[in-house]
Amino acid sequence: MTSPLGLLSGHAARQTVLPIVRPTFPDIISFADDLQHALATGQVTNNGPHVQAFEAELSAYVGTPTLAFSSGQAALMTMLAAVDVRGREVIVPSFTFCATPHAVAWAGGTPVFADVDPRTLTLDLGEVERLITPRTAAILGVCVYGIACDYDGLQALGRCYGVKVLYDSAPAFGTRVAGRPIGGFGDAQIFSFHATKAFATMEGGALITNDPALLARADALRNFGQRQGRAWGAAGLNGKMPEIAAMIGRRQLPHFDDALRRRLEVAVRYRDALGRLPGLAFATPPAGQEPIWLYFPVRIDPHGFGLSRDDVATALAADNVLCRKYFDQPCHLMPAYRNGTSRRLPVTEAWTTDVLALPVYNDQTDEEIGFIVERIEAIHAQAAEVQRHLRATVA
Amino acid sequence: MTSPLGLLSGHAARQTVLPIVRPTFPDIISFADDLQHALATGQVTNNGPHVQAFEAELSAYVGTPTLAFSSGQAALMTMLAAVDVRGREVIVPSFTFCATPHAVAWAGGTPVFADVDPRTLTLDLGEVERLITPRTAAILGVCVYGIACDYDGLQALGRCYGVKVLYDSAPAFGTRVAGRPIGGFGDAQIFSFHATKAFATMEGGALITNDPALLARADALRNFGQRQGRAWGAAGLNGKMPEIAAMIGRRQLPHFDDALRRRLEVAVRYRDALGRLPGLAFATPPAGQEPIWLYFPVRIDPHGFGLSRDDVATALAADNVLCRKYFDQPCHLMPAYRNGTSRRLPVTEAWTTDVLALPVYNDQTDEEIGFIVERIEAIHAQAAEVQRHLRATVA
Repeated sequence: MTSPLGLLSGHAARQTVLPIVRPTFPDIISFADDLQHALATGQVTNNGPHVQAFEAELSAYVGTPTLAFSSGQAALMTMLAAVDVRGREVIVPSFTFCATPHAVAWAGGTPVFADVDPRTLTLDLGEVERLITPRTAAILGVCVYGIACDYDGLQALGRCYGVKVLYDSAPAFGTRVAGRPIGGFGDAQIFSFHATKAFATMEGGALITNDPALLARADALRNFGQRQGRAWGAAGLNGKMPEIAAMIGRRQLPHFDDALRRRLEVAVRYRDALGRLPGLAFATPPAGQEPIWLYFPVRIDPHGFGLSRDDVATALAADNVLCRKYFDQPCHLMPAYRNGTSRRLPVTEAWTTDVLALPVYNDQTDEEIGFIVERIEAIHAQAAEVQRHLRATVA
Repeated sequence: MTSPLGLLSGHAARQTVLPIVRPTFPDIISFADDLQHALATGQVTNNGPHVQAFEAELSAYVGTPTLAFSSGQAALMTMLAAVDVRGREVIVPSFTFCATPHAVAWAGGTPVFADVDPRTLTLDLGEVERLITPRTAAILGVCVYGIACDYDGLQALGRCYGVKVLYDSAPAFGTRVAGRPIGGFGDAQIFSFHATKAFATMEGGALITNDPALLARADALRNFGQRQGRAWGAAGLNGKMPEIAAMIGRRQLPHFDDALRRRLEVAVRYRDALGRLPGLAFATPPAGQEPIWLYFPVRIDPHGFGLSRDDVATALAADNVLCRKYFDQPCHLMPAYRNGTSRRLPVTEAWTTDVLALPVYNDQTDEEIGFIVERIEAIHAQAAEVQRHLRATVA
């Protein structure tokens, strides 16, 4: 016997909130001595010993040289500046967090928006190829929700047309392809370690590349364009990771594979259970890929399911399940970019209208998954009442 | 009887190093409970309660609305983007850390370098006025070493020519003018709270402005251009201060006036003692100004003093006094900018050739100041031997 829907009863069926993200951090005890030492000596930033050790550990984990950053966005801006996209175009998806095109704009480039593949939600290769012109500096793929891009396909396009291939993998640290953590695909790849990510250092990020020249440029750019105390020929910024973030990252890394395993289980359970309901569609990563599933995206067809995405989100929130309409605003229609193109991006626009991101935690319990699934089933079963209630509320 | 010079004896006259900066941070015990709570709840960033409280406390301290940032550079880039300098010129000093022109470049503007006043080392008003054209978007003054710019003079120029007046006061948080902490001068003013600064949050910074519209734009820009979950019409970045930085800043603020007092004493002692030696010149802040003195800059005339700046720095380092040739590379001659102008900046070029920055600490002891002064006196007294030794070493 399921509890009544909170939306209809006025009482949430769950007292404790299930937020959209629930970060896991180490206890302060595990790094207190290191932090106290850093505070006492004043060595709290500027490529200190913990950042250096963290970079070595990250490099070993992904198998590719890694630079730590203050944030994923600082890494992304630095990557684009290291390639130098000034005055040129960068092909990006619109189905991404706005950080992606914003970084292109800061780096002096123009984002050109491509539609995504309806199954993987990553860049559509045919779209990308059509958008490549002599003005194109780079393709910037996004590993949305942690789903890896078609690395081979984009690499082939980049080689064929002589453009750089870069990855904004902000959501995707930990995703595995063919059993190995991603990192070092394309000319360079960045990750975010923000608190909302599966692997979190509070704020933080990384740039990973097999290109020694690009690595050296990025290393200078993240420190105001300076290396060995001298100015390098480009405008750098402050992308330095503080020691405290590296201390936390170093405590996270040894346990991180457990988080990936759990998140994969959560996604399988969501998909198996929700796949029985009509009107729901899911992203389908290519075979052999294990995404970190930053969230679990569900596309809700109002006709098939009986309720719109917005109505489902409202009903879930009334039972303290806080999902996210992510991404409900495609980048190409944002005020900063909508004058740039009149192109329609049908897949992107359909997903942004209908997508609901369900929470995935590193430590999600079976009970929590079961509750979320059961609530969605109950909302579907009482779709007519939910709709009546919401219409009455609005009126 | 003074000890022999380490350079000549081969033995440093002081065992413990006096570094160029010696940051002071609170003990971890003073914020451990807050940090553990943040880690346990996951609320470690994204405008959390400690950042909000820190902003309120900073606003009260300077008497002007304040936004906290991840770094001074993020605040600076955001300030320039909030004003929107894309495709236009920004008049900046060349006698500054390269972060200043780099931020202008990131924001899509062109830095135009002006010379500085030989006494205050801040922007020369006559120079600025000559460089204003219809392409000028803003004047960006720098409060170098913590010396406040001529706020009234620059404000008058800005008003007269209709250009924005902004301040990169990265080194200068705590400086007082007419007895009050600076902040809120011009259209907006930024500060750095980097570990090298007198007021430090590890990494951090702030933007301070009396203009509510500029404040709202900056608030959105530091969060990817988003406010209330919707996109604003410009490319934002990630300028968010993490909670840990705000926790530390909140512990620093109540004691900070003690630091200012001590730093003023250090500067007076340096100036009084070193003023007796020939060939040394000092910056002269306007009357009524109490700079935070990030460093104490001394200009060394090789003819008057008997040794060049580089020789003095080498001799001091041999006695474990680590000064900084700051700034030895003027921005207008850096690879990123030297094609932009063929103008000479005589005051800037003279100071960059001859300036040595002496350490100033929040907790500098009389003994430490005395030792540094005494070493400089000894180096001067033995200038001929020092020069012979250095020539022999090179040869």
